Amino acid sequence: MSIISMLLGEKKKTASVAKERLQIILARERVGGSGFQPDYLPALQRELMAVISKYVSINPEDIKVQLERQENLEVLEVKIELPDVPR
Amino acid sequence: MSIISMLLGEKKKTASVAKERLQIILARERVGGSGFQPDYLPALQRELMAVISKYVSINPEDIKVQLERQENLEVLEVKIELPDVPR
Repeated sequence: MSIISMLLGEKKKTASVAKERLQIILARERVGGSGFQPDYLPALQRELMAVISKYVSINPEDIKVQLERQENLEVLEVKIELPDVPR
Repeated sequence: MSIISMLLGEKKKTASVAKERLQIILARERVGGSGFQPDYLPALQRELMAVISKYVSINPEDIKVQLERQENLEVLEVKIELPDVPR
């Protein structure tokens, strides 16, 4: 299943009011004992939000962040509902 | 199916040499005639790469970019294989 078909499927399940939305997924696959590498996803996420807010106006309350870890995979998911008024 | 289980499944299918990898997925859900909004994903992707390269050293040849559009969903997927040597 491709990522776009999965996201479309997810969208249909949670079909709510049609809104402009942006979803950012950061997936980091670690290698064995690469624990020595700093955990940079949270810092990276903050910086990515700063970059994104240059393109679309973001209301902090409309941001949902979820961090999941399974096996050697770490997935940070950020969902942003965008205001109706175009920037 | 959650995003992390889907990415884990995808990883197992393409199980190759264990490498540190980073995957960024930008999914934009447009509303009806929001065609008037500029297509900012490509520009956003370039800026995100600049931010990411502050955290991990990226070799341009190790970056794969894929843009898909289906219905009102636009998904930009960036896959980066990271060098073995920790930054």
